[in-house]
Amino acid sequence: MTAPASSGVAPAHGEQRYWPEGFGVTPGGVLTVGGRPVTHWIEEAGGTPLFLYDSALIARRIEQLRAALPERVHLHYAIKANPMPDVVGFIAPLVDGLDIASAGELEIALSAGMEPRHISFAGPGKRDAELAAAIVAGVVVNLESEGEMRRLARLAKQLGKPASAAVRVNPDFELKGSGMRMGGGAKPFGVDAERVPAMLAELGQLGLQFEGFHIFTGSQNLSATALIEAQDKALTLAAELARHAPRPPRFVNIGGGFGIPYAPADKPLDLAAVGAALSARLDRLDVEIADSEIIIELGRYIVGEAGVYLTQVIDRKVSHGEVFLITDGGLHHQLAASGNFGQVIRRNYPVAVATRFSASPEETATIVGCLCTPLDRLAEKIQVPVVEPGEVIGVFLAGAYGLTASPVRFLGHPEPAERLV
Amino acid sequence: MTAPASSGVAPAHGEQRYWPEGFGVTPGGVLTVGGRPVTHWIEEAGGTPLFLYDSALIARRIEQLRAALPERVHLHYAIKANPMPDVVGFIAPLVDGLDIASAGELEIALSAGMEPRHISFAGPGKRDAELAAAIVAGVVVNLESEGEMRRLARLAKQLGKPASAAVRVNPDFELKGSGMRMGGGAKPFGVDAERVPAMLAELGQLGLQFEGFHIFTGSQNLSATALIEAQDKALTLAAELARHAPRPPRFVNIGGGFGIPYAPADKPLDLAAVGAALSARLDRLDVEIADSEIIIELGRYIVGEAGVYLTQVIDRKVSHGEVFLITDGGLHHQLAASGNFGQVIRRNYPVAVATRFSASPEETATIVGCLCTPLDRLAEKIQVPVVEPGEVIGVFLAGAYGLTASPVRFLGHPEPAERLV
Repeated sequence: MTAPASSGVAPAHGEQRYWPEGFGVTPGGVLTVGGRPVTHWIEEAGGTPLFLYDSALIARRIEQLRAALPERVHLHYAIKANPMPDVVGFIAPLVDGLDIASAGELEIALSAGMEPRHISFAGPGKRDAELAAAIVAGVVVNLESEGEMRRLARLAKQLGKPASAAVRVNPDFELKGSGMRMGGGAKPFGVDAERVPAMLAELGQLGLQFEGFHIFTGSQNLSATALIEAQDKALTLAAELARHAPRPPRFVNIGGGFGIPYAPADKPLDLAAVGAALSARLDRLDVEIADSEIIIELGRYIVGEAGVYLTQVIDRKVSHGEVFLITDGGLHHQLAASGNFGQVIRRNYPVAVATRFSASPEETATIVGCLCTPLDRLAEKIQVPVVEPGEVIGVFLAGAYGLTASPVRFLGHPEPAERLV
Repeated sequence: MTAPASSGVAPAHGEQRYWPEGFGVTPGGVLTVGGRPVTHWIEEAGGTPLFLYDSALIARRIEQLRAALPERVHLHYAIKANPMPDVVGFIAPLVDGLDIASAGELEIALSAGMEPRHISFAGPGKRDAELAAAIVAGVVVNLESEGEMRRLARLAKQLGKPASAAVRVNPDFELKGSGMRMGGGAKPFGVDAERVPAMLAELGQLGLQFEGFHIFTGSQNLSATALIEAQDKALTLAAELARHAPRPPRFVNIGGGFGIPYAPADKPLDLAAVGAALSARLDRLDVEIADSEIIIELGRYIVGEAGVYLTQVIDRKVSHGEVFLITDGGLHHQLAASGNFGQVIRRNYPVAVATRFSASPEETATIVGCLCTPLDRLAEKIQVPVVEPGEVIGVFLAGAYGLTASPVRFLGHPEPAERLV
């Protein structure tokens, strides 16, 4: 997380600012994405707001993962982080599988050319129509409950087709310090570990094709220690449960949870440490899962830092001595950046004046969206050069959980453009 | 806020539950909307999830407002609360004007047949194309800054058409205790009151047609005292500012802010008290605004309680002794009900088992959506009968800031249906 020598926005209130790596700046001080100034992409897209996703940064992140993780690890991309078809189509050939969460994402995964057996479908409330679509497509259903298992078996019978199933386990441990906890204690996700043996017996009797386990313990975690511990426990649990399986698991999906830094205080994940520990752990895998594919499924970590959201300043106004830069974007496109999607405390995302990225800070300003609500803030009291309408604001970390995680129809504004560059 | 004698969901943890008024129940215990069981509407719509908006309840609320407020008050509907075209089309003939926040909402307002001079367009970041659309349509632009005023004048000249403008004022007072504060202190909305006189002089020189003032101080307020005080101050401020106007204001929009109860502890607004105080206040209006239309603009108060979101239970599962009812809906349709849209503390919306509305409570359950995220909770630990898959959950207070205020494309699920009944 090094700041470019000339960073268009300086520390606010003594706070250190940072930018995700991989972006550049023109001699004239304009932020570049994919080697070209943002103004180029905006002109090509016909205006702002615009999401840019840098394919080279996505590819570089996948290379970093391949280099750090043991060779035998299968890397999956969780489509939910960014389901833009161009993005999924770009990533699909670079990874070993795709994870989906709906029939809509199933369509995207199939269109990206991924082999169905490397597509797995998780989600606590799968409708019958979704299960049927999964059977027809031949993808793996990660079973979230005994009830879902029975529905899948019934539907497979009705359709006269085999159904592939994994068991999503709610483990008795958690991924400590996660942005979101997905395991440990009472959860709507997966099946409590102690009930899995009985479920596996029934699964075999029902004629479902057992494929493996899905043990997802948390997300957005920056601690290598916590991830290493959770991965270790997940593999131990999978081996224990595999003893009760109708056949050896083809795969063990130990989840993801690799976090990215959102604020200056966040230290980037030590990927090398995670990889080294996993490598050592895989050398002493229990016999029950010795031949299983070990899957790591990542979404945000692959695409999050590769995206920038660009929005133009429409107005600069001063109210009671405070400067507001009002943009044509807002929380309807970037809800999480506004601090209103599950966050308890609002923290600024890295935000800069993209068209004056090298300019020195001259004043403190709050950057807001165009919506008529006080919730619509993109950056609170940051240091910026004096900016007039027409300049472009860049909101970083927009590659994951951006557009599709935002209320895009709120207040009836037009859809923003998205480009993979 | 009286509970029906037989309420399908009983108090949880000693907490009192309540239902908005106007809904019924069949002898068989099914919640009715518009006089028919929810199962009827679901069948007609082809399934769940489904938003139902009860036109009779909307009409009744408008009648209540007409009865309580002084006759000379002009009642406006703020489309942003629920922009469904059928809803806006139903409301338009019952109110005196519509308030819009984008070019998209302008289209909806015009399609609803509202006379353009009774449509006013507010929003801090109006693009040139939106201002031009407003000029062409002949609606009133609520100016949010001097810069916007100059852009409007320039565009009017370019188009060779007159432009109608009101000044949105950021007053020096606030609506105390509001869900969201829109006035008082530094704000991105409107023009600080002390700068309005100079702006009005320039507005006249620029050849813009001055129409009035827009003074919006807050939203979702349940205190009659606070509303009465804010209305009083808004009228005083409007009269003071009117002295500097190029001509007497055709209207003074004193905003809205009438709240609805979301939790049992919320006491409904004393509408009669607000109406009586406003009536007395209008009897002693300053001469500068004596002939002005006095506008009250409401969104949530008109439609919020008239809507129910219906979602079917897909799975009932027990994890570590806790019961989870997993539905085919979720925060992608009802973000605010999940507690993730600007709320600091999550409170349950009124939520019931709509198909067993009269059944006695038998267990505590948490009702979640179908999304793979722990944020997706529709009701936390409420008392319900033992519910099996297929039963329908009703989330009340879904008439305002529901579907369009939610990340509908999150995780790629299909759109829910919406019906005005």
